Amino acid sequence: MIEVRTSNRTEVVDITSQVQEEVRKSGVRDGLAIIYTRHTTTALTINEGEKGLLEDLEDVMSRLVPRNAGYRHDIMDNNADSHIRAILIGNSVVVPVTDGRLDLGTWQRVLFIELDGPRSSRKIVVKVIAI
Amino acid sequence: MIEVRTSNRTEVVDITSQVQEEVRKSGVRDGLAIIYTRHTTTALTINEGEKGLLEDLEDVMSRLVPRNAGYRHDIMDNNADSHIRAILIGNSVVVPVTDGRLDLGTWQRVLFIELDGPRSSRKIVVKVIAI
Amino acid sequence: MIEVRTSNRTEVVDITSQVQEEVRKSGVRDGLAIIYTRHTTTALTINEGEKGLLEDLEDVMSRLVPRNAGYRHDIMDNNADSHIRAILIGNSVVVPVTDGRLDLGTWQRVLFIELDGPRSSRKIVVKVIAI
Repeated sequence: MIEVRTSNRTEVVDITSQVQEEVRKSGVRDGLAIIYTRHTTTALTINEGEKGLLEDLEDVMSRLVPRNAGYRHDIMDNNADSHIRAILIGNSVVVPVTDGRLDLGTWQRVLFIELDGPRSSRKIVVKVIAI
Repeated sequence: MIEVRTSNRTEVVDITSQVQEEVRKSGVRDGLAIIYTRHTTTALTINEGEKGLLEDLEDVMSRLVPRNAGYRHDIMDNNADSHIRAILIGNSVVVPVTDGRLDLGTWQRVLFIELDGPRSSRKIVVKVIAI
Repeated sequence: MIEVRTSNRTEVVDITSQVQEEVRKSGVRDGLAIIYTRHTTTALTINEGEKGLLEDLEDVMSRLVPRNAGYRHDIMDNNADSHIRAILIGNSVVVPVTDGRLDLGTWQRVLFIELDGPRSSRKIVVKVIAI
């Protein structure tokens, strides 16, 4: 289990090194890792962690799924945009494990995306399965 | 295998309890479950099952990928919007299994999304793998 | 490992038969296959390979995430649209394996999506895990 604290309503946290540590502890040399967020207003993706790109992503998501756009769910809980963005990005990623390490490409990072923060404790489950 | 009957062109069906039953039958205590739809005009996601939110999701998808928008594929089969929405949401989810149960967060449900119904039989494959 | 050469900036390549061959070589009869691209400007999806539909998908993605729309990342590398489209579609797919074969539905194909080509060598990792 990885725990993340977030400081803003939306935010991207690079969790690659924590996931790599979970893979190491598992002892698995060849297989796959699933990284799974247990929340409905956060997402996970694999991509480049470049700061400008992550701001561009936030701009695109704000245009495609704007906040406070008259959503029915906002009457109960003012975060329909967070849920819908989470659905579009996805709440888990799966990464191959080779030679005991995440088999990431040169520019790939495991990115946790907060969509309804700040929150003191976001929980991400990691399971590593051997072939 | 889970079988779902749908009643409308678009519709969300909560299949959490059926998936949980497949996990129980597998006998797996620690591992992961893959839930996979074998259709190209349906999707799967993990999120909250609140009725208003699911209507908001339908509204957003109708705005982002409207029906009958002059698609080439509609000449063959009038459902290009259904395919493209399915690609954006995704056709499988993976959930960790811990202590013999789906390791879902408090608000998480496994949701099957019909995008080109009604259909008498939609088939969803569940595989449960032990660590 | 599957290697793909692409000829255009955006392009869809059907890799179903190569993935099926990896499943055969693994000897796994019952389990799952993960198909994973190691690049940050490519995606993978499971859907129909109909030519008109794939052009419709390209049109929708160009409308939702247009090229050269003043992205910050474009100052470094003129491909922010490629990264963001990859995040929306996803960089891996998981497919059940039954009786030694990918358990695909009638119309399902494994599709590799180039978003920043042409490239001489795109690398896709396949891992097959037995139940």
